Amino acid sequence: MVSDLINYPNLKKVSNNRKEINYANRGMSLEKDLDLTNEFYRSSGKAVIHKKPIPLQIVSVDYQRRSAAKITEAYFKIPSTTDYNGVYRGYYLDFDAKETNSLSSFPFSSLHRHQFEHLNAVREQGGIAFLIIRFSRRDEDYLVLAKDIEAFRQENLRKSLPYDWFKQKAFKIRNSLNPRLCYLEVIDIIIKEADYV
Amino acid sequence: MVSDLINYPNLKKVSNNRKEINYANRGMSLEKDLDLTNEFYRSSGKAVIHKKPIPLQIVSVDYQRRSAAKITEAYFKIPSTTDYNGVYRGYYLDFDAKETNSLSSFPFSSLHRHQFEHLNAVREQGGIAFLIIRFSRRDEDYLVLAKDIEAFRQENLRKSLPYDWFKQKAFKIRNSLNPRLCYLEVIDIIIKEADYV
Repeated sequence: MVSDLINYPNLKKVSNNRKEINYANRGMSLEKDLDLTNEFYRSSGKAVIHKKPIPLQIVSVDYQRRSAAKITEAYFKIPSTTDYNGVYRGYYLDFDAKETNSLSSFPFSSLHRHQFEHLNAVREQGGIAFLIIRFSRRDEDYLVLAKDIEAFRQENLRKSLPYDWFKQKAFKIRNSLNPRLCYLEVIDIIIKEADYV
Repeated sequence: MVSDLINYPNLKKVSNNRKEINYANRGMSLEKDLDLTNEFYRSSGKAVIHKKPIPLQIVSVDYQRRSAAKITEAYFKIPSTTDYNGVYRGYYLDFDAKETNSLSSFPFSSLHRHQFEHLNAVREQGGIAFLIIRFSRRDEDYLVLAKDIEAFRQENLRKSLPYDWFKQKAFKIRNSLNPRLCYLEVIDIIIKEADYV
């Protein structure tokens, strides 16, 4: 049980980075950009994509107040799935969003083992499984298919995806005012190519 | 903000029922049956369906312990989506699960307005949107398409779905030892009929 509990959000494993406060702020901003993006997609009827709530282990609840039960003890749990999923043009989308301060690579340690397994299970069911990765210091966002990550991991012993690899295999996401991240443009290409499983 | 917070799980609105403890137990059992069912479907590679974590408003977190951050104040929020979603044979499934102790009808008050809107948005994107409803005292489980509920609501002023309506419009779910609720059998029929949007 205890091993299932973690510090959250991103309070440990700030490797490759000594400026912890900046890291956290950057961590917020991709999430916020995606919140606004998904809200735009929903309100304009383009797609129904939501961020899942943070999984918590609730230990103690105070029911004294009639208006609202108060949780007085709870812990963050390691998520067993990715953070985002939903439906677009009848297709199931499932992804996680990560930022890195590294200029040279994206470390696999950013994801839990469960999350890799989940993305592969989604692929097996014909869903579109991917990551959205922000290179914060480059101000660049990429969409990477889970199938391409898996292929890399099977051919390499490296524990990170090199930046050069992104230039070849990942889809760069265009930014705009609204939506912030035009990632459905990339999904349209992926659906057309029909090579995501 | 406060209006967004609710007592949870099922501590108020125990209408049609004076045996609160039984109601709570029954409320647990459909959820538990679905947990086991979805676990079976996932582990056998049939589908990837998860229950979403309960949405909470976190107010205060204690970071003193290194091993696990402790949430010391949080409140339950009204969910903006349904509890379950995932992918099956490339199709997006999205549903909520509800129990009623009534013998005669299923009250719409069991669902929040946001959830009806969400189910309709899912339909518009070509997803399969539905409810799983248990008549606890009849020991019967039904799968009801969101499109059929919507049609009923537009033709009727009633605030509940009569039990007789289920006999005509809903799909009865077969129970088994494993999976507990064979609801994917019903989804197979629905996919075949291609009349869920």
